[in-house]
Amino acid sequence: MEIKKLDLIDCHNRIKPLIHNTPVLTSSYINELTEAEVYFKCENFQKMGAFKMRGAANAILRLSDEQKSKGVVTHSSGNHAQAISLAAKKIGIKAYIVMPSNAPKIKKEAVRGYGGELIECESNLKAREAAAEDVVHFKSATFIHPSNNLDVIIGQGTASKELIEQYGSFDHILVPIGGGGLIAGSALAAKYFGDNCSVIGTEPFEVDDAFRSLISGKIETNITTNTIADGLRTQLGDKNFPIILNEVKKIIRITEDEIIDSMKLIWQRLKIICEPSCSLPLAGIIKNKDEFKGKKIGVVITGGNIDLDNLPF
Amino acid sequence: MEIKKLDLIDCHNRIKPLIHNTPVLTSSYINELTEAEVYFKCENFQKMGAFKMRGAANAILRLSDEQKSKGVVTHSSGNHAQAISLAAKKIGIKAYIVMPSNAPKIKKEAVRGYGGELIECESNLKAREAAAEDVVHFKSATFIHPSNNLDVIIGQGTASKELIEQYGSFDHILVPIGGGGLIAGSALAAKYFGDNCSVIGTEPFEVDDAFRSLISGKIETNITTNTIADGLRTQLGDKNFPIILNEVKKIIRITEDEIIDSMKLIWQRLKIICEPSCSLPLAGIIKNKDEFKGKKIGVVITGGNIDLDNLPF
Repeated sequence: MEIKKLDLIDCHNRIKPLIHNTPVLTSSYINELTEAEVYFKCENFQKMGAFKMRGAANAILRLSDEQKSKGVVTHSSGNHAQAISLAAKKIGIKAYIVMPSNAPKIKKEAVRGYGGELIECESNLKAREAAAEDVVHFKSATFIHPSNNLDVIIGQGTASKELIEQYGSFDHILVPIGGGGLIAGSALAAKYFGDNCSVIGTEPFEVDDAFRSLISGKIETNITTNTIADGLRTQLGDKNFPIILNEVKKIIRITEDEIIDSMKLIWQRLKIICEPSCSLPLAGIIKNKDEFKGKKIGVVITGGNIDLDNLPF
Repeated sequence: MEIKKLDLIDCHNRIKPLIHNTPVLTSSYINELTEAEVYFKCENFQKMGAFKMRGAANAILRLSDEQKSKGVVTHSSGNHAQAISLAAKKIGIKAYIVMPSNAPKIKKEAVRGYGGELIECESNLKAREAAAEDVVHFKSATFIHPSNNLDVIIGQGTASKELIEQYGSFDHILVPIGGGGLIAGSALAAKYFGDNCSVIGTEPFEVDDAFRSLISGKIETNITTNTIADGLRTQLGDKNFPIILNEVKKIIRITEDEIIDSMKLIWQRLKIICEPSCSLPLAGIIKNKDEFKGKKIGVVITGGNIDLDNLPF
């Protein structure tokens, strides 16, 4: 299925009752520093604190009544788990969330707080997938993948659609790449609603699978996931990769030090709490100043769910 | 001089080119916790990071051309110093900022970054006042007090005016009390633009001079200033106190632990960086839940200039 402009428009109208049109912030200091005009779309202010609410809401609202009556399932210990829980709660259906039993208590509580039913399993991908398959099998629930699902991809694209609708087109929109859902959706939004607007990915050097995939033309994996940007440790999937391959021209890699410096800069200057993943785009702009000088740039601040007792500075 | 409704309207129109109409945030979690409807007016997103920009801009714009040509002076090591520096820079006049020589480097740099001329002195009130008086005497600059100045008070009131204009009236608006400029201005805005909207002050137990002043009917002082809320260590003045005495019915005192807990709650749930002073109003709502239950409440988040390397959690 090729995603069309109308799919994004329909999706946006569908999810509007469940999401915030999030604020956009700018900083004179950052604009002077980069000599560019940077607009930060603050999805840390989104419901449950991340853009994941958009894709989760769309995927759930697209289910048939029959499917809705059986509920949904996912395996995630991050924002997608909370997003699925909250979106399901809001439309009154059941959400099963598979999470390793050693996941942080705060993440388990967040899911339960949003009304999700927690299913604990061993801490490896095989166990998580098996537990989710069990729920699909025994409860007939629908599995919703965090990033490799077209309805999720379309949903994530509405953040950039909103940004363009409010501020006009951009020369570039920069986003971080983890599982590939956000960048695929953003690229489609830029294509359909922007005017010659290119979407550029930013990725930690430590998990540069997407960077390598764009070069090799096939989905590459990571051997280690040693990055502070915990939201970006995942790899691309067969549904989002073709979109990324077609629509994304470039991925900039960022070091761990650059992530932390940029995160601190955003906290200090924009006065917002955001996750480490959010800071890669600004780090990319700063390290490639000559390329971005004079440009109008959109950045998606992806989320703000962070453990304040465990900061890198 | 009695401050009239038109004074606030004129002031707001005057300073609009120099300030942001700051965003207002809400949190479902905080509304459920308090069983109230709480709107946070985020002056941490104001230019230079605090509501102080409003009063500084108004006081400077009200000067005659003759006065402007001589520049302005203040003594402060906090947000007022940065606000005066930036407002002066924006309209192209000179700002002299008196600061103790042992003030943190980051504060000195902030003032210089906004174009203020730093005058260093010994670290006591007498030395600061003397140094400022010297500038008034030798440079004919106009002294602008951080809180005990009617133009500053009117300027600070525009934050609540904006809040009411955007969201309709409130049952209560809660603000922290330091030098008294913000609460005096807020009380006037609530009186002139609100519909039976009461302004309530919140103050650390450790520096409860305003609480005691409201009881005694005269300006009380603090013996110690042992609070984390560094913006609230100052005392009321003869220009703002009569307004506070007339218009403010109540001040709630907050413990240091309550300040820190509430600050963490705001950071985690609203995803914003704010100073310790900002957290007193929410702490007041939480500790007096029965009184505020079911009410529509405005809260001014006063500023976001904080040292990230020195957090209380």
